[in-house]
Amino acid sequence: MATLFHHPLCPHSRFVRLLLGEFGIDATLVEERAFERRTEFLIMNPAGTTPVFQEEQSGAIPGAAVIAEYLDETRGLAMGDRRLLPGDPMGRVEVRRLVDWFNGKMYDEVTGYLVKEKVFKRFMPAELGGGAPDMAAIRAARSNIRYHLAYIGFLMQGRNWLAGDRLSWADLAAAAQLSAADYLGDVPWNENEAAKHWYARVKSRPSFRPLLADRVLGMEPSEHYADLDF
Amino acid sequence: MATLFHHPLCPHSRFVRLLLGEFGIDATLVEERAFERRTEFLIMNPAGTTPVFQEEQSGAIPGAAVIAEYLDETRGLAMGDRRLLPGDPMGRVEVRRLVDWFNGKMYDEVTGYLVKEKVFKRFMPAELGGGAPDMAAIRAARSNIRYHLAYIGFLMQGRNWLAGDRLSWADLAAAAQLSAADYLGDVPWNENEAAKHWYARVKSRPSFRPLLADRVLGMEPSEHYADLDF
Repeated sequence: MATLFHHPLCPHSRFVRLLLGEFGIDATLVEERAFERRTEFLIMNPAGTTPVFQEEQSGAIPGAAVIAEYLDETRGLAMGDRRLLPGDPMGRVEVRRLVDWFNGKMYDEVTGYLVKEKVFKRFMPAELGGGAPDMAAIRAARSNIRYHLAYIGFLMQGRNWLAGDRLSWADLAAAAQLSAADYLGDVPWNENEAAKHWYARVKSRPSFRPLLADRVLGMEPSEHYADLDF
Repeated sequence: MATLFHHPLCPHSRFVRLLLGEFGIDATLVEERAFERRTEFLIMNPAGTTPVFQEEQSGAIPGAAVIAEYLDETRGLAMGDRRLLPGDPMGRVEVRRLVDWFNGKMYDEVTGYLVKEKVFKRFMPAELGGGAPDMAAIRAARSNIRYHLAYIGFLMQGRNWLAGDRLSWADLAAAAQLSAADYLGDVPWNENEAAKHWYARVKSRPSFRPLLADRVLGMEPSEHYADLDF
């Protein structure tokens, strides 16, 4: 049995959960509070971040992009035309560029702030930086998210999915980031119809269902969070 | 002819220059001041960051890790036992984990601060954030670098190269980050003999020579920067 060490609102963990769903891999989910720096967890991932994936025949595999490459290398060909990474080098460049965009740039500018300020700081002891949210950081994130929604809308003008004709890592990375912000009620969906329409399509995939069932202790999701027709 | 849009002290650009050297690819180097947000550059890489690689048969390929994957996919097999990415999935996991560590974590904690505060801010107009360096950021970087040197020393206890038996992306990523800090005189080499010895081996490779010849306008490198016996 495979195991995923994750946090329900960690966007990078959500990306891997979507991947596992698309591959049809059942994994035991272990909730990890990375900020607690548990020794056994640091041995698996010295960087101390979620997600970490592990299966019987592998050691610990840390990091969203590293896990994605591993899953493609060990199972991608068997996916046939449902493979989430194209076969041609420039198609792969575009998918990886967009994964970096959403898991890196969007996380640094939007979701990282939202999740840290609104969620993790509630559970962190004061000496590790816990406490009241920094409203300036939340305002910056809410401003920055509009640019990322607009970029999704721009990409969807000429494409069927974010990186091209087929569903890819790029869609799952973008949707994972947005889904964490959406749980917190911080996505202004009405600002971009094309982005909203694209998200509705990803959200209705079976791989998305477990994310929609997530509940974080003491924090209800936004009203429309689990609604497929939002 | 291939082209690399880079900055001489951008550690991610240096990583790609080392890769190109190992592959024996001649590329025209175009110095890009990413903070100027040149329109033609933003078309190649909407994220607005160096490096971007381009060759006749490809479009623009942005981002250090994306370029590395592209070079391996188009030329890796022809490298034989000099290939910089192992063939087995868990070997690849370890290489990619360490590339993330150095290009991501070490950059965020050390080299990103050093290069921004000491180099880029000299060339940036005030309205884009240019001006005097933030000494607190530089002090944080100088403190954090000791942990990364120690981690290299730790890895080298049981390995021939950082990720295992053979030279890989991991060595080039770590050396690229350190080389930028070393240009600025901010690597306390005497703190870790194993890390210093490993760096001397990477530094003596022919792929490293162009980096040692770099000079940034108005900023001399540290005294030992180009010295192979430092």
